Amino acid sequence: MSFILVSEVGPRDGLQALKRTMPSAAKHRWIAALAEAGLKEIEVGSFVSPKLLPQMADINAVVAQAKTIKDLHVIALAPNLKGALNAFEAGVHKITLPVSVSEAHSIANVRKTHAEMIDEVRAVIELRNLCFPGIVVEAGLSTAFGCTLQGVVTADETIRMAEMMAACGVDEIGLADTAGYANPVQVKRLFRRLQTAVGNKAGGAHFHNTYGQGLANVVAALDAGVTTFDSSMGGIGGCPYAPGATGNIVTEDLVFLLESMQYDTGIDIEKLRQARAVLLEGLPDQELYGYVADIGLPKGFAYTETDEHERKK
Amino acid sequence: MSFILVSEVGPRDGLQALKRTMPSAAKHRWIAALAEAGLKEIEVGSFVSPKLLPQMADINAVVAQAKTIKDLHVIALAPNLKGALNAFEAGVHKITLPVSVSEAHSIANVRKTHAEMIDEVRAVIELRNLCFPGIVVEAGLSTAFGCTLQGVVTADETIRMAEMMAACGVDEIGLADTAGYANPVQVKRLFRRLQTAVGNKAGGAHFHNTYGQGLANVVAALDAGVTTFDSSMGGIGGCPYAPGATGNIVTEDLVFLLESMQYDTGIDIEKLRQARAVLLEGLPDQELYGYVADIGLPKGFAYTETDEHERKK
Repeated sequence: MSFILVSEVGPRDGLQALKRTMPSAAKHRWIAALAEAGLKEIEVGSFVSPKLLPQMADINAVVAQAKTIKDLHVIALAPNLKGALNAFEAGVHKITLPVSVSEAHSIANVRKTHAEMIDEVRAVIELRNLCFPGIVVEAGLSTAFGCTLQGVVTADETIRMAEMMAACGVDEIGLADTAGYANPVQVKRLFRRLQTAVGNKAGGAHFHNTYGQGLANVVAALDAGVTTFDSSMGGIGGCPYAPGATGNIVTEDLVFLLESMQYDTGIDIEKLRQARAVLLEGLPDQELYGYVADIGLPKGFAYTETDEHERKK
Repeated sequence: MSFILVSEVGPRDGLQALKRTMPSAAKHRWIAALAEAGLKEIEVGSFVSPKLLPQMADINAVVAQAKTIKDLHVIALAPNLKGALNAFEAGVHKITLPVSVSEAHSIANVRKTHAEMIDEVRAVIELRNLCFPGIVVEAGLSTAFGCTLQGVVTADETIRMAEMMAACGVDEIGLADTAGYANPVQVKRLFRRLQTAVGNKAGGAHFHNTYGQGLANVVAALDAGVTTFDSSMGGIGGCPYAPGATGNIVTEDLVFLLESMQYDTGIDIEKLRQARAVLLEGLPDQELYGYVADIGLPKGFAYTETDEHERKK
């Protein structure tokens, strides 16, 4: 029985994609409900300009409140040095830097060439090392499996960028299927190459369900030894170019998959359903995706056995 | 590069679950469009009482028309000896007998205990052997991974039933996740045990997507060496106790998964999208599921290389 870390990214990846803004108090209630369900790590938002993403304007308050939740590992996304500094000062436990393998995507997403972004990462690491030594810095390699702008992204391109990030001194390198293009064969191969290339800096998997392949890719990543998966409650986030398509893989269904496969997540699916209700209080009428939350657990379903305090937190 | 057979069950498993009936001519146009997209095997309907399933009242005409399509392997479901006789006389290439591993499901579905159903299967095989030697008989083991009535179904129960079916003389034994309860660990283990237990009589996988785990289970079944997968266009069929939940796994997304993984299906996804339009002509406003049909193929997507005549039929 092994533990798999489900890292909730809904408050960041989900909320940033919506047109409306969730009030801070509602964000906090939702994050607290997620933690109560057993989630141990939550990406609570982004340190970005409120002009670009007004949904994230309250990030300092959100981080401060999330840090009051016992044992919760609080992550934030920071696209640049300024955002990283703000995140460090806010006291997050970890930041994620979005580093695109596709240069076209890098320019579209963070307005930086590869060379410029690599410089930014170096500066973030230097700042962290000098002033905030306890905070973990992850590079999340966007478009690691393909890109809507560039099309095919080769494994060599992704591994080269991972090696560059390791050389820059980041602590973890995760692979993100930003476009939803990944397939299980590619996932297994690429995570194995990542482990060979960067050793224990190899990080988790961030899959989008744009093509409905998200959980299939999880199975392949588990086979490759991946132990951390990002997901969002209700799959919120959507996909701007595909109406009706979900965003991240759905936390509820991911947990159901993992527990069914005898992995221990420490998460209670019934409590996730309650957290879903809390999410809807903050985002009335939001369309949520996923299956198990609507249907309920199968007859005879048993959680993977785990220490009681793990599941109950 | 290996060939995977995608066996379309929409005209049977999909249409039987809908309240309305698709006209015969529309069924034929849809089946022809599916074949034109490259599907090589289609379960076109059930030989059951039209009182029970009026949607299948035209099964003889549907089979006769499907048989006019060049190189198409025509399957029908038959729940009993009478249905099997009718299917044999109609000249199908193969019949599927639904044999429940859960006795409670057997009684609910075909109104027979295990002992009664086994007798029925023996009689079907005897009839086939004596009078219709060229027609393949498959036992599709319903509730092989769990049952909404019984709850957990053990691997031992499923394998015992598979061995019994082999002893009865059926040609193939497939495993069906009727309730959508299966998980990838269970799928891999059970198909491996099936192969050990019944050797080359081990058949394909029939997954439902009730819990959103269908394609994840496909990945595991591929790992176990399964080479035939049932699916339905648009995931039609639904699930009576779970509004909004899809029925079978979605053909379009399954083909996309397989081709992305470098398996050869011989199926053209653009033509599947055209067949989806034909389906909608016959079932106006029907809700269809799946991702790739709505979004279209990813930028840079390449089919697994295959002989031109394979894909074009």
